[in-house]
Amino acid sequence: MKRKLLTVITEQALERQLVQCVMDHGARGYTLTEARGQGRRGVRSADFEQVGNIRLEVICEEDVARQIAETLHKKYFDDFAMVLYLQDVEVLRSEKF
Amino acid sequence: MKRKLLTVITEQALERQLVQCVMDHGARGYTLTEARGQGRRGVRSADFEQVGNIRLEVICEEDVARQIAETLHKKYFDDFAMVLYLQDVEVLRSEKF
Amino acid sequence: MKRKLLTVITEQALERQLVQCVMDHGARGYTLTEARGQGRRGVRSADFEQVGNIRLEVICEEDVARQIAETLHKKYFDDFAMVLYLQDVEVLRSEKF
Repeated sequence: MKRKLLTVITEQALERQLVQCVMDHGARGYTLTEARGQGRRGVRSADFEQVGNIRLEVICEEDVARQIAETLHKKYFDDFAMVLYLQDVEVLRSEKF
Repeated sequence: MKRKLLTVITEQALERQLVQCVMDHGARGYTLTEARGQGRRGVRSADFEQVGNIRLEVICEEDVARQIAETLHKKYFDDFAMVLYLQDVEVLRSEKF
Repeated sequence: MKRKLLTVITEQALERQLVQCVMDHGARGYTLTEARGQGRRGVRSADFEQVGNIRLEVICEEDVARQIAETLHKKYFDDFAMVLYLQDVEVLRSEKF
């Protein structure tokens, strides 16, 4: 079953909002992992800094993935370090997405 | 070198069984990361619950990935939260898979 | 925006060198997660052993990804367990890579 894997890497402070956003858009689940990283912070700064990050992964239909990304971008992209990307995945043996 | 990346996200209680299954199928290695997540639990319940999960990743030939997935599905899918998916990867500079 | 996701799974002892290498090649950021794993150790040994690993992920142009991989391979592949692979990703809503 072809689906999209949406990965969001952002600051730990946004964990609750991320989960809420994903569930609001009708995703059937998500996976969170702790991460560290470095990158440009939002669009306002050229500084690099090492920060505690989270990575959220959601498997869903492409349109849902794009809607989640759009919402997160609008709400948080200016003020938080956030990277969003999509990948193709083949979900095996599941009726759940 | 084109290979498949098989990702299995499931409950921590299955770690030992997962590793055993992967090695039994002749995979050359695996990577485990701790995760948290929420999703439908198995096929028996519509409940969502936040649980401690593990993510297991294995790079291997496609047929091995599908055999591992099939075995895990048969043994554990009814009783444990489990998501299985495949992605294409290009393994760089290795003779090891 | 199409980019490559380079994933490097290797021993924790190399964390500082990995980050340095990635930044030296002009990548705009990276993500690190803790992992455990098992696999053949370098090219010198057929032994399997469970070790503390790190996973480094970098999103960048394909040529940068290949240069990073080449550098890491040359410097560390003989002496450390190291897996390198590339995937296609679509980076959403960013001007940052």
